[in-house]
Amino acid sequence: MRFSQLFAPTLRETPAEAEVVSHQLMLRAGLIRKATGGIYSYLPLALRVLKKIEKIVREEMDAKGGQELAMPILQPAEMWQETGRWSVYGEEMFRLQDRHDRKFCLGPTHEEMITTLVRGDIRSYRQLPLMLYQIQNKYRDEIRPRFGLMRGREFIMKDLYSFDRDEAGLDESYNKMYDAYLRVFTRCGLTFRAVEADSGAIGGSGSHEFMVIAESGEAGIVYCEKCDYAANDEKAELHPICLPREEQLPLDEKTTPGMKTIVKLCQFLSITPEKTIKTLAYRTDTGTLVLALVRGDHEVNEIKLLNKVGCIQLDMANEEAITHALGSQAGYIGPVGLDDNENIIIVADATVMNMSNAVCGANKPDTHYINVNPGRDFKPSLVTDLRLIKENDPCPHCGAPVKTARGIEVGQVFKLFTKYSAALQATFIDIDSKEKPMVMGCYGIGVSRTMAAAIEQNYDQNGIIWPAPIAPYHVVVIPVSSKDEQQMALAEKIYTELNANGIEAILDDRNERPGVKFKDADLIGYPIKITIGPKAINENLIEIKIRRTGEVLYFSQAEYLSNVKELLIKL
Amino acid sequence: MRFSQLFAPTLRETPAEAEVVSHQLMLRAGLIRKATGGIYSYLPLALRVLKKIEKIVREEMDAKGGQELAMPILQPAEMWQETGRWSVYGEEMFRLQDRHDRKFCLGPTHEEMITTLVRGDIRSYRQLPLMLYQIQNKYRDEIRPRFGLMRGREFIMKDLYSFDRDEAGLDESYNKMYDAYLRVFTRCGLTFRAVEADSGAIGGSGSHEFMVIAESGEAGIVYCEKCDYAANDEKAELHPICLPREEQLPLDEKTTPGMKTIVKLCQFLSITPEKTIKTLAYRTDTGTLVLALVRGDHEVNEIKLLNKVGCIQLDMANEEAITHALGSQAGYIGPVGLDDNENIIIVADATVMNMSNAVCGANKPDTHYINVNPGRDFKPSLVTDLRLIKENDPCPHCGAPVKTARGIEVGQVFKLFTKYSAALQATFIDIDSKEKPMVMGCYGIGVSRTMAAAIEQNYDQNGIIWPAPIAPYHVVVIPVSSKDEQQMALAEKIYTELNANGIEAILDDRNERPGVKFKDADLIGYPIKITIGPKAINENLIEIKIRRTGEVLYFSQAEYLSNVKELLIKL
Repeated sequence: MRFSQLFAPTLRETPAEAEVVSHQLMLRAGLIRKATGGIYSYLPLALRVLKKIEKIVREEMDAKGGQELAMPILQPAEMWQETGRWSVYGEEMFRLQDRHDRKFCLGPTHEEMITTLVRGDIRSYRQLPLMLYQIQNKYRDEIRPRFGLMRGREFIMKDLYSFDRDEAGLDESYNKMYDAYLRVFTRCGLTFRAVEADSGAIGGSGSHEFMVIAESGEAGIVYCEKCDYAANDEKAELHPICLPREEQLPLDEKTTPGMKTIVKLCQFLSITPEKTIKTLAYRTDTGTLVLALVRGDHEVNEIKLLNKVGCIQLDMANEEAITHALGSQAGYIGPVGLDDNENIIIVADATVMNMSNAVCGANKPDTHYINVNPGRDFKPSLVTDLRLIKENDPCPHCGAPVKTARGIEVGQVFKLFTKYSAALQATFIDIDSKEKPMVMGCYGIGVSRTMAAAIEQNYDQNGIIWPAPIAPYHVVVIPVSSKDEQQMALAEKIYTELNANGIEAILDDRNERPGVKFKDADLIGYPIKITIGPKAINENLIEIKIRRTGEVLYFSQAEYLSNVKELLIKL
Repeated sequence: MRFSQLFAPTLRETPAEAEVVSHQLMLRAGLIRKATGGIYSYLPLALRVLKKIEKIVREEMDAKGGQELAMPILQPAEMWQETGRWSVYGEEMFRLQDRHDRKFCLGPTHEEMITTLVRGDIRSYRQLPLMLYQIQNKYRDEIRPRFGLMRGREFIMKDLYSFDRDEAGLDESYNKMYDAYLRVFTRCGLTFRAVEADSGAIGGSGSHEFMVIAESGEAGIVYCEKCDYAANDEKAELHPICLPREEQLPLDEKTTPGMKTIVKLCQFLSITPEKTIKTLAYRTDTGTLVLALVRGDHEVNEIKLLNKVGCIQLDMANEEAITHALGSQAGYIGPVGLDDNENIIIVADATVMNMSNAVCGANKPDTHYINVNPGRDFKPSLVTDLRLIKENDPCPHCGAPVKTARGIEVGQVFKLFTKYSAALQATFIDIDSKEKPMVMGCYGIGVSRTMAAAIEQNYDQNGIIWPAPIAPYHVVVIPVSSKDEQQMALAEKIYTELNANGIEAILDDRNERPGVKFKDADLIGYPIKITIGPKAINENLIEIKIRRTGEVLYFSQAEYLSNVKELLIKL
């Protein structure tokens, strides 16, 4: 490809709307353009990257026996009503009606569709196992689409579904996919971790997420360097901390004007956060108030709370709801005196129950209780593991202090068991002549998200640094002066030679100043830049610059090609 | 691929819902499954065919300088409102609102989107010409989706858009695409014709359609074997027929009870259809009644009528509307006496005006006029070419009698000129420093439709006969007895050998009777079937059967491979 012919409109300025690096760089490098919030066009360079990721995904899915098909994006409501997800999905689902007023959605996922498809054609255990997948647009009406492709409303997913006779078969399919995912992200040239995950609203249990490590990642990851434990911090389990029992002192009130944070409160009372109980108020989707209690130096794991309360959605309660229910404001709320209130659910982290003579809000303005003894002064509705893991907490497997990192979720594998096959009557006749529901798994990769995550992990102040396996082109060839015939001729020759040898090269043949061409090359982020200037003409020295390291190498015309090939394997 | 692992659920019975051959065979061969009316899943075999068509399309688009990108399916309403097509598209457009009540559609086409995209990034004539394309799902809410993939509501299209400085540039882009389309359909192995077409509601003028010739085709084609004229019959122009002038006799009425058709009327009056005027009543989208007049042996070309009347939609008027406006029923309506009626538009084919002493309906029950002389007895609002061309009519170019055929439209190329660039202010600064709207063309290929059309053109009573370039697999290898170890071993060897030599083979390793395997092979329609039976084992004779011709050939193990290769080039 010649740059002069390529539709890759680069921008000098960073568009104000772009909050994250991948979004900024994809706009600037002419990879994407916004159609409307959360909906983008992929321009030719981005499409090349996406196709490379898709090719890797396809090859690895096929290698495990996956078969590609393509299901509709436009899905009739009926099958979603059968599983109950038509109502569960709420406003995140794009819905529409056709001219005959029949209801449809734009598929956010395809469990209902594939299960309905398979139930019509699979009758016998002899037809199992089966792995079917597709790569296509998915839709989610995010309330605040942002971060470019990281949280869009229209995005590209690979979704594979496995169908097995029994759980042993599911385990096998799951392990195959887990293995395939390791290979996919390794082949994409990304640094990532597979972590234990919460299986969330999609149902079932048993799940891993594949996280591209990046500081900008939305997800917290904990991992242990002593054993092989790694988990989404939302999922990581923690044992309660054993605390020495103190003699229980009588409950008392303290006036604490303006002491609405744990930090201020501790300063005021000259205590450490370990002596305080933090109370957070939430509201479930049905409007019930939930008070979550953790020790003052701990954080609430909202996913654990959601799962334990057993509701679909959980939001922080607003001041109005708190004042209405408790007669006080956030900062002064607490669990004491609410044991008989049937409208409030109190969930305590198990560590809280080991505390003695603690401090918590008194549900009165400017007032805290001191000498609070859980069990004596209040009885939670539920005691459980509610704590969010943090750096140096003990590894749930081996007890060694854990490390933390930030990650971008690019893939997830789930065991669905019979959740959908039972709901949709996708059964088969087993070898024992009994009719059984198929045992299912589902396995997703965010293809467009992987592209964005690759950038979040690989960039510098000058632009993108593509890992070679998913770079839009491997090499850019830049003649320093487009008016120098010798330079142009040599650049042309090298460009042709590279492409003839299976190296994807682009020739920057634009009539632009060298600075513009170099800047665009760095911005777009080709792994290798070959500069054809006077040195190349006069000294037979081809300049090769490695985008990632900045290293500059010189080779003769006879030698550059084999060296480029070798370099690309490592980049 | 081993058939035992493949998700290709074949059916013995033809599903009752399937009206056309391609739909029947795709269901029976396990290529597609219906999700709901007009919306299908493409199973693995179909997806392979689609990908082969797409690959051919991509290669030919790229060869002409096309650059692939991917625009959103979900399109904001605003840009459609700017061009006015938000209202024009009517009920055929799937519309929806997001959670913030913003309006969207599912793209039926992408002129608005691409023009909006390009206007933001193209500023100078130096950036032109530009050809951008995508292959993706398109959406059209057909009132009666039917004929399987021939008229679906979700379908796969390639759409390319060209942007040029001027009309000379557009001509060049148009010719490139015309040429690319010839290559695409030739490479797909299809018999087709490029015909002059009406450019319809999409706007602009100058258009060709690419028609796969098939008896089941919805479109009529006329072509001339003397010159190179070929056109959609909707588009074909006709000169008026010169008729000898007769002495005009006085207008008179005849009672013609029950003579509602031309045939009956002619028998009753002992005249030929050439002496009658046929009057058809239509209603425009704004409710105006249109009477279309052609000679009794001619048919009305409704597309010509639509274009001449200049309305968006035209439907046959119902009995009620006819009776209300004319006081009579269809079969007895005519133009006489309506000259002063401002609510009725009378459009006459030019040949009608050359008729003398003709017969037409009198707008009274059971009554016709005789001795009707157009011009004397009625004055049409408009005289024009309104006739639908038929076999043996004179070629509009050379006058030789034309031939007719039926075709399935699989591609269309349009000159849009500045219709969209002007409406959406997609301008550039030309070399003369003047701001001008870009000159556009658009070029579509129905990818899923091409698959269906290929079947409509290539099948027999046993199933599909794929042209080799788009066959899901080239060769099926069938061991006669799956229990015969020698046969299985040889079949396995040949299967492996074929794939190793770049021939896509499938091994029917199922534990099924030979009849079942042969029937499925014919149904799915692989170009070549290799049977491994006793002859292969005992006599070193590999049986090769050609699906299209039924020809059976025998080759030794040493020779079969080169012969298969050779055969495939021709199939």
